[in-house]
Amino acid sequence: MFAPVYFDHNATTPLDPVVLEAMLPYLGTRFGNASSRHDYGRAARMAIDEARSRVASAVGAHATEVIFTSGGSEANNLFLRGAAACMRPGLLAVSAVEHPSVREPARQIVAGSQGAWQLREIRVDGEGRIDGEAYQAVVKDKPRLVSVMLANNETGALYDIAALAKGAKQTGACFHSDAVQALGKVAIDFRALNAAGVHALTVSAHKINGPKGAAALIVDKRVELQAQISGGGQERGLRSGTENVAAIVGFALACELAVGRLAAGAQRVAALRSQFERGLHGLGATVFAAAAERLPNTSYFAFADIEGETLVGKLDRAGFAVASGSACASASTEPSHVMAAMGVAPELARGAVRVSLGADNTEQQVAEFLAALGDTVFQLRRLVALAG
Amino acid sequence: MFAPVYFDHNATTPLDPVVLEAMLPYLGTRFGNASSRHDYGRAARMAIDEARSRVASAVGAHATEVIFTSGGSEANNLFLRGAAACMRPGLLAVSAVEHPSVREPARQIVAGSQGAWQLREIRVDGEGRIDGEAYQAVVKDKPRLVSVMLANNETGALYDIAALAKGAKQTGACFHSDAVQALGKVAIDFRALNAAGVHALTVSAHKINGPKGAAALIVDKRVELQAQISGGGQERGLRSGTENVAAIVGFALACELAVGRLAAGAQRVAALRSQFERGLHGLGATVFAAAAERLPNTSYFAFADIEGETLVGKLDRAGFAVASGSACASASTEPSHVMAAMGVAPELARGAVRVSLGADNTEQQVAEFLAALGDTVFQLRRLVALAG
Repeated sequence: MFAPVYFDHNATTPLDPVVLEAMLPYLGTRFGNASSRHDYGRAARMAIDEARSRVASAVGAHATEVIFTSGGSEANNLFLRGAAACMRPGLLAVSAVEHPSVREPARQIVAGSQGAWQLREIRVDGEGRIDGEAYQAVVKDKPRLVSVMLANNETGALYDIAALAKGAKQTGACFHSDAVQALGKVAIDFRALNAAGVHALTVSAHKINGPKGAAALIVDKRVELQAQISGGGQERGLRSGTENVAAIVGFALACELAVGRLAAGAQRVAALRSQFERGLHGLGATVFAAAAERLPNTSYFAFADIEGETLVGKLDRAGFAVASGSACASASTEPSHVMAAMGVAPELARGAVRVSLGADNTEQQVAEFLAALGDTVFQLRRLVALAG
Repeated sequence: MFAPVYFDHNATTPLDPVVLEAMLPYLGTRFGNASSRHDYGRAARMAIDEARSRVASAVGAHATEVIFTSGGSEANNLFLRGAAACMRPGLLAVSAVEHPSVREPARQIVAGSQGAWQLREIRVDGEGRIDGEAYQAVVKDKPRLVSVMLANNETGALYDIAALAKGAKQTGACFHSDAVQALGKVAIDFRALNAAGVHALTVSAHKINGPKGAAALIVDKRVELQAQISGGGQERGLRSGTENVAAIVGFALACELAVGRLAAGAQRVAALRSQFERGLHGLGATVFAAAAERLPNTSYFAFADIEGETLVGKLDRAGFAVASGSACASASTEPSHVMAAMGVAPELARGAVRVSLGADNTEQQVAEFLAALGDTVFQLRRLVALAG
C-alpha cells in the first residue's frame, strides 16, 4: 500500500526508528506528568530537562532559551503575537515569501490593532531573494518586529538572516526567523545569530525525522513575550499545558542525529539534486530560484504547458510522492504567494511542482523518477497537442 | 525503577498498550502530512477524518463539531480567547474552582480589555458546590461568556452544567465547560448538553489512557471563534499546524475504550474509593467535597497536623504516587485556589493530598496504601508531638 517513493521531505519526514525507540519508554512505563512530584513525574521532568539541553546544543543555544511548543506554527504564532503584545506598536515587517504561520498572525496583529501596527511585506526578486533596496527602506522606517525565514519551504531559497538582522539591529528591531526548513539541512548557530541581532528562531521536529507534536521557539531571554496558551505555567509561563514528553524526547534525539549527519547528508542530497535537475533541464523544465542560494534538498520547477496538480496526480499514481506548492497551501488551487511574490507568471506558477529529497532517497530512485517524469510529461504534452 | 503504585490518574494516565498499537503505523510507514496530495498525505487525512468521527461519537457530537488541539490547555485557551475576540465585550463569568487554563486566559482577557470585559468568579460552598444564589446573580447580570468545568480536577466535584447552562441560556450567554476530568469517568452527551445551552466542551486524551499531545474543543458551529494559532488553515481555519496524526488516532481509540468501559469501570473505581475513604475516616482525615456529587475516582483529603507536601514525599518513598493539590499547581507551595474558594482554613488546606484512582488500580493496592498511609501518619504525628 505504501509503495510510493517519498520525495516530499519539506512537508514532513518519516520518523527515524531510532527516534521512535527513544520515545517508547515515555509511551510506556514513564508516562508521568512532568509537573507531578513523585517518581513518575520526576522521570518525565528529567527527560524534558535533558531534551531541552540537547535541542539547545544542536542549534548553539542555551537550554534556558528553548521554549517547547506543539509545532512550528504554534512557535511562529507565539513569537509574533507574544512579542507584539509586549511592544509599543509600529512597523511589522515580514518577507513576502513567509510561511502562512508567519504571514497570517502578522496580518491579524495589524488588522486587530486599529492602525497602531503597520505591515510591510519585504519584496523578493525573480529568484526569490530578498530585494536589498526594499529591505534597506524597511530598516530606515525603524521596524519594531521583523520576521524573515532562514529557508523557504517552497523554493528552498536561503536567506542571510545574520546580515539582515545586523542591518535591523541598530534600529532596535526585534528579529525572528522561521528556521523550520533550515534545521538539519544547513548549520544553525543561535549564539552567532543572536550576536548579529537575531532574537528568536523557530525549529520543529517532524521536518528532521522526528515526531509530529514537538517544536521549539529558541528565544533571547531579553525579549518580552506574552503567553498565548496560559494556565499551569509550564515553559517558564510562556506555554502552559502538560508537556508531550515522548515527542520532546524524540525531538531532542532527532536534532542531534540531524546535526550530526548534516555535513555528509547535505553533500549526498545535493548530489542527488544535481542529478535530478540535470534531468529536469533535459525535459525543458523551469527551475525556480535556481540562481539563489538554496537548501541542498529542494527542487521547485514547472513545465510551461502542464498543470502542477495534474502532474502531481499522475506521478502519485506512478508511485512517486511529490508536492504542488507547499503542503499547507495544497487545499487551494491558486498559485502560491511565493510564486506571486517572485513575479512568476500565473500560467507557469500553476505548473509548480516541488521535489524535496531526504536521507532515505537514492540515486536509483531519482533515475526512476526522472524516467517516469519524462513519460508523464510526454503524454500530457501529447494530450495538450491533440486538444489544441 | 518504576515500582510505585500509581494513584494520580487525574494528573495523567498510562497510555493503554492497545492505543499505542493503533498509533504505531502513524509513527512508522504512515508518516504523511495530512495536507499532502499523495498516498502518504491521503492516508493521514483519512486517519484524522475517522478519528474525528470516533471522538465525536464518544461524546455525542457531530464530527464537524470537533476541533483537534495539542492539549486541554490549548483547547480552553482557544475557546475563551477565541470566543471573546468575536464578541461584544461584557461580563465573563467562571467558577472560582476552574483549572488554571481557564482562570488565566479569563484574567488576561479582562486585563487586556481596558475595562470592556469584567470578570466574575462564581462562588462555591464549603463542599465545592456552585453557590446557587451567586450563580443566579451572575445570570441576572447577563454574562456574555460563562465557563464552568464539568468536574473539578482537585476535589472531583461534579457540576450540573446542563442546569447551569439552562439558566444562562435565556440571557444569550455562550457557555463552555472544561470536561477534561469528566471524560471517561461520567457519561457526556454533547447533543443533550448543547440543547440545554452548552456551546463548547474541552476533552483531552492523556487523562483517559490516551497519548499526550491530542485534545479537542467540541464546539457548536454557530459559535464564532478566532483562531489563536493561524497559518495553514487546518481544523477549519481554527487551529493551524501540521496535525499530530498518531496522537489524534490514539485519542480516538482511547475515547472509545473509555466510554465503552465507563459503566463497569466507574462502579469498580467507586468501590475502591469507598474502601479507601473508609480507611481514611479511620485515620481521622478530612475528606474535601465529600458531600458533593463527585467523580467516582477522586479522593481529596487532609490530616490537620500534617503538611501535604511532606506526606506526598514520604508516600513516594514508600512506593505510592499521589498528588498534593493539582499537578499543574504543584510547583507552588501555596494552598490551592480551589481550597481557598471552598473556604478551607489555610492550615488544613496545606495538608491536602489527592488520590485519583484508575482502571489499573486494585483492592490490594488500596489496602497496602492504607497501611502505608497509617504508618506514615503515625510517624509524622509522633514527630510533631515530640517537637511540640
